[in-house]
Formats: sequence, structure tokens, C-alpha cells
Amino acid sequence: MKTDLDAIMQDNNLDALLITGPGQHNPAMIYLTGGAHLTNADVIKKRGEPPVLFHASMERDEAANTGLALRSYNKYPLKALLEEAGGDRVVAAALRYCKMLTDFGVTEGRVAVYGKVELSNLFPILLEVQRRMPGLTLVGDPEGRVMGTAMLTKDEAEVARIRQMGRVTAQVVGQVAEFLTSKPVDADEILRNPDGSPVTIGQVKGLINLWLAERGVENPAGTIFAIGRDGGVPHSSGAPDDPIRLGTPIVFDIYPCEAGGGVFHDLTRTWCLGYAPPAVQAIYDQVRTVFNTVMRELKPGVHFGEYQKLACEMFEEMGHATILNQPDTEEGYVHGLGHGVGLRIHERPFSSTTSLPEDMLQPGAVVTIEPGLYYPERGYGVRLEDTVYLRPDGTVEVLVEYPHDLVLPMKE
Amino acid sequence: MKTDLDAIMQDNNLDALLITGPGQHNPAMIYLTGGAHLTNADVIKKRGEPPVLFHASMERDEAANTGLALRSYNKYPLKALLEEAGGDRVVAAALRYCKMLTDFGVTEGRVAVYGKVELSNLFPILLEVQRRMPGLTLVGDPEGRVMGTAMLTKDEAEVARIRQMGRVTAQVVGQVAEFLTSKPVDADEILRNPDGSPVTIGQVKGLINLWLAERGVENPAGTIFAIGRDGGVPHSSGAPDDPIRLGTPIVFDIYPCEAGGGVFHDLTRTWCLGYAPPAVQAIYDQVRTVFNTVMRELKPGVHFGEYQKLACEMFEEMGHATILNQPDTEEGYVHGLGHGVGLRIHERPFSSTTSLPEDMLQPGAVVTIEPGLYYPERGYGVRLEDTVYLRPDGTVEVLVEYPHDLVLPMKE
Repeated sequence: MKTDLDAIMQDNNLDALLITGPGQHNPAMIYLTGGAHLTNADVIKKRGEPPVLFHASMERDEAANTGLALRSYNKYPLKALLEEAGGDRVVAAALRYCKMLTDFGVTEGRVAVYGKVELSNLFPILLEVQRRMPGLTLVGDPEGRVMGTAMLTKDEAEVARIRQMGRVTAQVVGQVAEFLTSKPVDADEILRNPDGSPVTIGQVKGLINLWLAERGVENPAGTIFAIGRDGGVPHSSGAPDDPIRLGTPIVFDIYPCEAGGGVFHDLTRTWCLGYAPPAVQAIYDQVRTVFNTVMRELKPGVHFGEYQKLACEMFEEMGHATILNQPDTEEGYVHGLGHGVGLRIHERPFSSTTSLPEDMLQPGAVVTIEPGLYYPERGYGVRLEDTVYLRPDGTVEVLVEYPHDLVLPMKE
Repeated sequence: MKTDLDAIMQDNNLDALLITGPGQHNPAMIYLTGGAHLTNADVIKKRGEPPVLFHASMERDEAANTGLALRSYNKYPLKALLEEAGGDRVVAAALRYCKMLTDFGVTEGRVAVYGKVELSNLFPILLEVQRRMPGLTLVGDPEGRVMGTAMLTKDEAEVARIRQMGRVTAQVVGQVAEFLTSKPVDADEILRNPDGSPVTIGQVKGLINLWLAERGVENPAGTIFAIGRDGGVPHSSGAPDDPIRLGTPIVFDIYPCEAGGGVFHDLTRTWCLGYAPPAVQAIYDQVRTVFNTVMRELKPGVHFGEYQKLACEMFEEMGHATILNQPDTEEGYVHGLGHGVGLRIHERPFSSTTSLPEDMLQPGAVVTIEPGLYYPERGYGVRLEDTVYLRPDGTVEVLVEYPHDLVLPMKE
């Protein structure tokens, strides 16, 4: 949790964190500022001290709303910096960082840099800061061992927000089901609009965005709504012009977030409208068996990768290829069992058998469980996903309940 | 334009570009791939050669849709990389880049890195790549001298997309005007909902997001809808719970983009509902005079900063402080006149008098013109903004026409 940050910095031998970039759609920045509407900002957090937010003067009101200690960039006038830098903008930007760090007593030790930003901009500036402050060592945190470790466990307020995103997600999934099952079909089994045109994937995705916007949330990463063969390729998002046909499985994976890039929720259902072909029903039942087994076995204190291993072994037992023994298979079970969900849609803990040893399921974790089977050449894929919370008492809460049915009966 | 990229690379002594990160909401990646739905990808573009897209095997269909030359990350199996790296993930990731670069003949010279990514992840990996490939020099492009120079001029297809975003934006602005002017007011001059509750800023912003979503576009950076004093602080986005009162100026700055983070459009109006106080009308007229003068004078071949200087001089002549002579003023005219608009909401050319000498207005440029006056202590601000296209023939096209009226008469 956020309150663990100083201790985690100590464990990782870090003296300060430097977080840069916009105030929204920038997980590390949002974690410390709460998601203020800032075009560009910096946060310096020294170990054992509260964070300081650097902001444009024009954005002083938004900055003040964060409740953090503030400093305006006006204290570091660009004109003087450019003069000192001989007109070189990279040097001027680096000088500003040097002064900011120095002003807050960060002149030696290890500083981890964060922020979702333009690499072409920050990479050369950080190299120049490093050159000018040899007492500092600027490092990254590619495995999420610092902020990512704090984020591994959520406090009640954070979980409440993810649960609320889950409710919104389930409402929209329900609206999509209602929309699809209310449509008439012709003899060709294709869903039709009132004007006779086919209902398309693109149309459904547009409605999903509309129904999410009605609830005040965002969908920055899009939606997977993939039918038939496309559903057999896990990250294929679906072809906009494709019609929707009875009996053809649809993989519907939806992962919206709070406005401005706050917490996410992640849910997948596989649907066959009207009826399911026996081959699809059979692999669906297998996925559901694995899903139910994992959900039953899930408990804190076990490495997430153990459940991936369990899922792979169960699928292999059923006769499917998996990445456990065929790392580059494109058929069978081809991805990880799940991932943490928070300010990022994919964050620690990861379920890979090669993920960090620290990626234990801990009380306070919020993770997805999402086994699937993929047979693109046979024209289908199946995935089932819920987001769950490992409560402090060790029990597991499915953050939002939504029916797991494969077949959605048509209304007429 | 994109077709100039090889020549611009040559001018900047660059041998290759390395672009990394997601396929969406990542301008440099979208510029080369068109905005495919890729979770994570890399593009290597060697000078004089077409770009190559590296992608996850699961995302092969989405990758194929880009029409680029492809290579799957499966060619660089993680397990082998981790072994070679002695289990160190940063080294493994760096080794993959080294192999990718080597496979495509990029083993010496200067390589510029791009992508909107997590710094904590990429910074240490790039340092390791640099260490392992001493023949390469990894550089940034903080001033946008390469991709930014290509993007300085738009081709007809790009302009058509920005124009279309302008149409959508104007439709939504019109809906907001219609919504506001249709509301009843009490003796306190506060706009009321049918249930008697006050119409709030947050409610209007929710409707804006809904109406944008209905048109299939996104609003990742939010909307400024700031009333009274908040409108006097240029980047204050407005307090959600604030009511809306007749005669109190509203600064409404809206900048949505295509779904997935494509092109933006930028438009600002200042409105007084019902009537305008004389002091507000007076500074509004001054802003409009400056706006009209700049629009009349605007032509290619002039540095954008010249128009900023013109705006400052006009405002100072009228008795206002400006950043030309008082760089840290928080009253008067406190920001730049405009900026380029494209895959970024703010991009070159910039109108600062200290912006790049190359930031001439060229035929093909798409820029905003947005003078304003800010008096937070007096409780108001005014800004007026259109997005314009400098046509190849030297004439100026306002990309979408929308009335500039300050006062919106109430319907009843």
C-alpha cells in the first residue's frame, strides 16, 4: 500500500523518486497526486518525506487540489535557464531538474525515475541530469519493485473504486447482451438492425463506448469484441465491419477505467447467441472447469505462477497444447492466467511461471483469473475472466458477479 | 510530411529511429503504424528503408493490418534471453533490442528513441542497450526536430481527419449551448435541472463526454469548462460541483481526438449566459480584436512567434500585462498564442518567441490561434480559439466555423 512506500524505498536502497509527466493517464503520477488535471508536472519524493509537486503557474489551482506540498515552475524561469544553458533546451531542462532536486536536498544517492512520457523528450534530459549530478545515480524500476510493490496490495478505498468500476462494467455487459439478444435474425442467422442492415462489431463497440461514457468512465485501451476466428487470437480486437451470427462464439473482453485514467476493471465473457456448436460447448466447459478449479484453490501466500502451472497442467491433461511445454504455441492455452489490476490494466502480480518470486498472492491483491483456449484455424476461441480481491481475512471476493453462461438465448 | 522522414533523418544525422510502446495513444507509434490495437510493440526504421514492426504473436492480426513489414517477438524467445542474461530482466530486454537492431543492420551510428512509455521501464533498458552497443549512440529528440519536423506539415488526408474532428467538436459545442440556454433559472440566476437542482459543471462535462462518445471519438485530456474566477486561470478545468449562473463568463476549451488516440481538434469559446457584464464585454472585445487581427495577418513564411509578439504588443497597447515584458505575470495575457495540432494536442510549431527558429508557419501547417485575457481576482477570464489550416496555396482555412458570440441569449 501507499503507506509502505518509504519502507519499500529503503528495501530497494532508494533515496528519492522522481515522477514526471501529465497528471492524468499516468499511473505513477496518479498514485501520488490522485489524478489532478495537470498538463505536465513533476513530483519529487524523498525517502521519509512527503512528496512535493512541481507545477505550471497556470495550473496552480489544480495543483492545490492534490493537497501536496507545491512549488511553481515559476521559481525556475526558463529564460534564465536557457541563458545558463547557452541556449540549449535539453541542458536548460536538465538544469531545472538539477535545481529542483538540489532545492529539496536530493544531491546524492539513488533516484528512481517514473512517468508515462515521451521517451524522445525525457531520455536525453535525464542523461544530462546524470552527467551534471555525478553524486546521483538515476535508475529505473523496470520490474515494478518499488511503486509496483506498494501497488501490489490495495487499501479499502482503492478496492471500493475497482469494485465500483466492476459494477459499471457489468451494467454495460448486460446492456450489450440485452441489445444482441433483442435483434431479429434472417434465415442466414445474421443479426439485423431495424433497417435490415447487419449488426456489426463496430456498431457494438460504439455502443459500448457510449454506454460507458453515460456512466462517466473511459475506455482508453478499447474493447475486444471478436467473433469466430478473431476470437481465437487472444488480442485480436475484432474487425469493425464483421456481422454477428448465431452460434459463432464471441470473445468479449472489456477493461474500462475511471475518468482521467484512474483504476481499471477487467472482465471477459464468451457468448454464443442462440445456440452453441457442440465443439465450442466442449472447450467452453473445459475452460470453465479450469476457471472454477483455480477460483476454488485461490488463496493468499501462494505464488501466482503456481496457478498458471495448475491451469497449464489441467489443459494439457485435457489434450491441449500450452505455453508451459510449448512456449510459442498459437493454439491451445497461449497466455498467462492473470495479472494485477489497479491504476494499470496489467500490473503486478503476474501469473507467469517466470514472474518475480515476490509475485505472491497477498491479502489486499486485486487480480484477474482468465483461462482460455484458442483454435483460430477451427474458427473460435474461448476465454472467461473475472477480477477478484483477496480480502485481508484470506477469502476471495469476485468484485462483480456476472453470469458465466456461454449461450445467450435470443428473445424471439 | 511523412514522406520527408528520410530526408529529415539525413539532415539530423540519424541512421535509424526506434519507436516503442503501445499501438494507441502513442503519437510516434501511431504516425508510423496508423494506430493498430497493439498492447506493446516496437518499430525500427532505418534511414532509406521502410519501417519494420515487432509485435507479440498474439497480436499478429492487428500487426498485419498496419501493412508494415513484420517480425514476431517469438523470434526472440524470452526464456533464452533470460538465460543469456543470467536471469536479469533488464539485461534480457536490452539483449532483445540489441538482437532486433542487429538483425536489421543497425549496429552503428545515431538512433533516436521515441514512444510514450513508462520511463521506469525503458530508461534502464536503453542505458543497457547503449552499454552493449558502443558503436550506436542512442539519442532523443526533445525538440521534435525529426518526427516533429515531419509532422509540421500535414498531407490532405491528415487535414481531412482533423477537419472531421472539428465538425464533431462543433456539433458537441452546439449541443452544450442548446442545453444551457434551454434551462430555467430562478431569481438567483442559477441554471436549474427539471428537479430543481442546479446544473453543475460536472454534469455538463459528463454530457460533453457522452455526446463525444456518441460520435465515436475520445476525450483523453478532459475538457476545460471553467466559470468565473476559474476561467481566469487558463488551465483550471473547472470545479465539478460549481453551479452555472447567468452573466458569469464560462471558458469552454474542448480538445477531443479520434478513437485510440488519433488526431485532435482544439476549440475555445467564452460564453456569458443571458447577458454579459460590461467589464467582461470590454475585455472580450479586446481579445476578439487581437484574434481577428492575427487571423487577418496570418500567412505562411512568417515565424509563429511573430504573431505572439503582435498579440502581446496589441494587448500591452490596450493596457494589459503580458508575458512578453512580464514573463511571470498571472494577470493579463499569460500564455502563448497557439500551437500545432495533430496526433498531439500540443505540437510544433509553437508560438513562443523563444521557440525553434524552424517554427515558421508553413503551407500544410495546422495550428490554433487562441489569445486570451485573465483576471482571476476580478473573477473572470476570456479566451477565443480556432484551429486553422494553412493551405498549400497560402490561404488560411478555419477548420470548423462556429459562432464567436460572447452572449448566449436564454430561450425563455
